[in-house]
Amino acid sequence: MSEIFKQIGAERGVVVSTRVRLARNIAGHPFPGKLGDEEAKKIIADVRNAVESSAVGTHFRWHDLANESELAARSLMERHLISPEMLQTGRTRGALISDDGAVSIMINEEDHLRIQVIYPGLCIREAYEAADKIDDLINERLAYSFDKDLGYLTHCPTNLGCAMRASVMMHLPRLTESGAMEGLITSAQKIGYTVRGMYGEGSEASFGVYQISNQESLGVSEDEIVKGLSSVVGQIIEKERKISENEEKRDPDAKRDKVFRAIGTLGHAVIISTNEALALLFEMRGGIPKIVNVDYDEIDELIWRVMPASISDGKAIQPRERDLARAKLLREKLGKF
Amino acid sequence: MSEIFKQIGAERGVVVSTRVRLARNIAGHPFPGKLGDEEAKKIIADVRNAVESSAVGTHFRWHDLANESELAARSLMERHLISPEMLQTGRTRGALISDDGAVSIMINEEDHLRIQVIYPGLCIREAYEAADKIDDLINERLAYSFDKDLGYLTHCPTNLGCAMRASVMMHLPRLTESGAMEGLITSAQKIGYTVRGMYGEGSEASFGVYQISNQESLGVSEDEIVKGLSSVVGQIIEKERKISENEEKRDPDAKRDKVFRAIGTLGHAVIISTNEALALLFEMRGGIPKIVNVDYDEIDELIWRVMPASISDGKAIQPRERDLARAKLLREKLGKF
Repeated sequence: MSEIFKQIGAERGVVVSTRVRLARNIAGHPFPGKLGDEEAKKIIADVRNAVESSAVGTHFRWHDLANESELAARSLMERHLISPEMLQTGRTRGALISDDGAVSIMINEEDHLRIQVIYPGLCIREAYEAADKIDDLINERLAYSFDKDLGYLTHCPTNLGCAMRASVMMHLPRLTESGAMEGLITSAQKIGYTVRGMYGEGSEASFGVYQISNQESLGVSEDEIVKGLSSVVGQIIEKERKISENEEKRDPDAKRDKVFRAIGTLGHAVIISTNEALALLFEMRGGIPKIVNVDYDEIDELIWRVMPASISDGKAIQPRERDLARAKLLREKLGKF
Repeated sequence: MSEIFKQIGAERGVVVSTRVRLARNIAGHPFPGKLGDEEAKKIIADVRNAVESSAVGTHFRWHDLANESELAARSLMERHLISPEMLQTGRTRGALISDDGAVSIMINEEDHLRIQVIYPGLCIREAYEAADKIDDLINERLAYSFDKDLGYLTHCPTNLGCAMRASVMMHLPRLTESGAMEGLITSAQKIGYTVRGMYGEGSEASFGVYQISNQESLGVSEDEIVKGLSSVVGQIIEKERKISENEEKRDPDAKRDKVFRAIGTLGHAVIISTNEALALLFEMRGGIPKIVNVDYDEIDELIWRVMPASISDGKAIQPRERDLARAKLLREKLGKF
């Protein structure tokens, strides 16, 4: 399993991360929306047992989201380890999350199971294969609701079929600045892909960050989703890179200036908001590796660590204290550049 | 003489520098505006001879402004070593400037002689005394135009009398932000003081920097000017300090944030304009010594070195090249903080 987790995706300059999630429901139970508390607990117990008794069980930690503090839950959401929906429902629910954060098994979200794998960079197939292994492992012990025509039965009809959503988080500052994103989003929609902001459905695209995912899963195979999304993402990467290279040819100093100014502010500010920190971190990220020699992992970790709940470190602190703590963390981590 | 030059003024947190200049005309010659070329040359020769043959003569260097490149002359102006007027006139003119930049003897400006002393910080009396010594030294060898009622005869009637102007350059960011400067300028004018921008007459007050000087010199003694200006400047310093201390009590992090962000940008930018560099240098200067431990001299030197002619280093380079050279200098000098 640790081999899977060590997979590092390609194209990290443009692709922040790849996420694949499979929706599954356990046979013989109504969907979570109609689930009684006892039955919800039984599903949790069954899934936990299936995973925890398996060969990879020791790599997972249980998060009881009905009883965890809101801050702790929100921090998991900021890291994309659980979906925003997992915060909102009052249901008995939780998530099994692997120690390295690559695998999350959300229980009693919209469906009984949401098996999610996130990897850094572009690696749709690898993420799918890892999710598939977890899926098999649970399915060996628990039967899923499945229909030979409709595929996996899910609460929302858009998730029927193979019930897989693959999503690639991309940093596209040049396409954003050039105004090309709007047309690109429309074109992607027409051929079955959704483009959303950093936190999925309903979230705005800020900092030039977008999530691109397949819209539906009925009538398409997992392999078709992997191939289709890979092709779309590949084309977007090319477009972004082309503008970027042209700009660099025309004015190499302008980009260096932006990246270094971002580093200067990140490494020196005493008070900094989430939005400013994220904007500057993505600016700095865009300078790796040519302009600044820093690990993508280091920046990507900071990107969630500066967020409001994560920076609070479990304590209910005021916005000003968060702005101070965030600046302190950034100075410690980036003051050396 | 080197003892005089080592004088360091007080109140450097608020007072950038003190300048005293004496206007003098050599007896028996018309004012420079009516001076023929041969006569202008004779005055230069006589003054140079008087200074260069004196005990301090070896400390001075002659700048022939009629023949020096415009860039070189402009750089001297940026350092306040010559007046802006010295750039404009087509006359045969020049300046004897001491190696450390503290003393400038401008020849054939508006008057035959403008003896100027600039010291860092607040030291009006010391600057006057140094100018007075240079004045005596020249007057031992050359007779001045003097009238027992009008005092030293000068081209402009506002300079009659003791013909001395003392000027203190102050950095007053808090009074500027608070909107108090306008009232303060009006009050100062009513009691005989002029408040101007960084480059004197006609220059705008930017970066919270002002020059405060006596308006007239007829009917007042040098000692009265020293005492009067000292008192006005002392009151302004108190006002600035009071706002600054109150702000620091109310929110100590806000100022630290501003100063550190300025340092971060100065130490990292790849392209930077004169205006941005000056604004940030003054912001940084305002953090000495509590927030940042750097020598006032180092920042004050950078304040003129980043200016357009000075950063060009004698070469006629394009604005973009200047912005790059300026950023490079600032990174070298301030990248360590």
